[in-house]
Amino acid sequence: MKKKITMTLATGLAAALGATILFQLPVRQAQAAEGESTGLSFLTYTADGKIVRPEPSLYRKWVYVGTPLTPNDMNDGEASFPEFHAVYMDPISFASFEKTGVYPEGTVLIKELSAVGAKEASSGTGYFMGEFTGLEITVKDSVRYKDEPGNWGYYSFGHKYPLKDEATMNRTASCNACHEKTAANNAQNLSKDWVFEQYYPMLSAARAALKKK
Amino acid sequence: MKKKITMTLATGLAAALGATILFQLPVRQAQAAEGESTGLSFLTYTADGKIVRPEPSLYRKWVYVGTPLTPNDMNDGEASFPEFHAVYMDPISFASFEKTGVYPEGTVLIKELSAVGAKEASSGTGYFMGEFTGLEITVKDSVRYKDEPGNWGYYSFGHKYPLKDEATMNRTASCNACHEKTAANNAQNLSKDWVFEQYYPMLSAARAALKKK
Repeated sequence: MKKKITMTLATGLAAALGATILFQLPVRQAQAAEGESTGLSFLTYTADGKIVRPEPSLYRKWVYVGTPLTPNDMNDGEASFPEFHAVYMDPISFASFEKTGVYPEGTVLIKELSAVGAKEASSGTGYFMGEFTGLEITVKDSVRYKDEPGNWGYYSFGHKYPLKDEATMNRTASCNACHEKTAANNAQNLSKDWVFEQYYPMLSAARAALKKK
Repeated sequence: MKKKITMTLATGLAAALGATILFQLPVRQAQAAEGESTGLSFLTYTADGKIVRPEPSLYRKWVYVGTPLTPNDMNDGEASFPEFHAVYMDPISFASFEKTGVYPEGTVLIKELSAVGAKEASSGTGYFMGEFTGLEITVKDSVRYKDEPGNWGYYSFGHKYPLKDEATMNRTASCNACHEKTAANNAQNLSKDWVFEQYYPMLSAARAALKKK
């Protein structure tokens, strides 16, 4: 009897979820049509809208798009984003970006931070990666972030291990504002969207290759 | 009639190639058995042993393992390897490495160089990627590089565009020597091989995950 109730509850829940999904589909389809794909399937959200921290086994095989570096020793001892920022793009959205030059609905960009581990090596003086220290995510979703500039949401799991298991969306002013400003600077090419594409040659090269076609 | 001749020629060619492959199999299989896989299939060699420069569409979707940085402005105006070194590992060998902690026969590592494009951005002061400038490859192959320390061969397509279409193997002293020294430094863990694994947290993390299993 107990089992039956559980199953009925589960069926009811599935039906309710199904209804919600059906209800949302027209919007999602309209958005997906523009950019062809969605990388959202890679992420898990909690019921109250937090993102569950993805395992490294997910994103470390995504498409690498570049590594800005803001070392602590060049930022008064403590960079806002310490220190190497390795950025990955989900492969579904990258495949779409390669074809269209547009960051499609559902684009997921993951920034994995690592500390400077050394400044001298056989190859010269510079900055060499050390331990992983942080993880951040940005997602483009016109449904979930309909009130956010550019429809991007920004999340941080922290800049120091152990990382948070779940992250709440950052306030608009703390991340989106700088990215929005970039978009304004990129006004001559709005498809660059909220992305600092100028620091990611893998992305600008994909765009340049598209223009040649 | 013409079609038939073409087909016969094609069949004969396939048979000849088949014979060559069969002939080489015992050696290759013996090597592959140690590390399970070979990434060699990704590369094209000329008859005289040069490597044909691979297209970015090949390696830019490989597994990213890290980005050392040796800026010109920290190396008397001209770094030996200017400046960002984004390093990728072929996915077949990475999958094997994840399981065994060994760089298998046929491992291909590609280093794509890019210039420093900016030193100030919204995220702080530091180094931000600019244009692509160079491409280098290293391959582990105990057949082809049987006389090279560690059985690694090192190639450079140049540090300035346009890159060379084909690259000859570098002299042992110019690349392998530094890598060999690393191997000696890593003597407590010989599986780190000729790779500067200490600067690639993605690789050390894969190794650490393996130890936990």
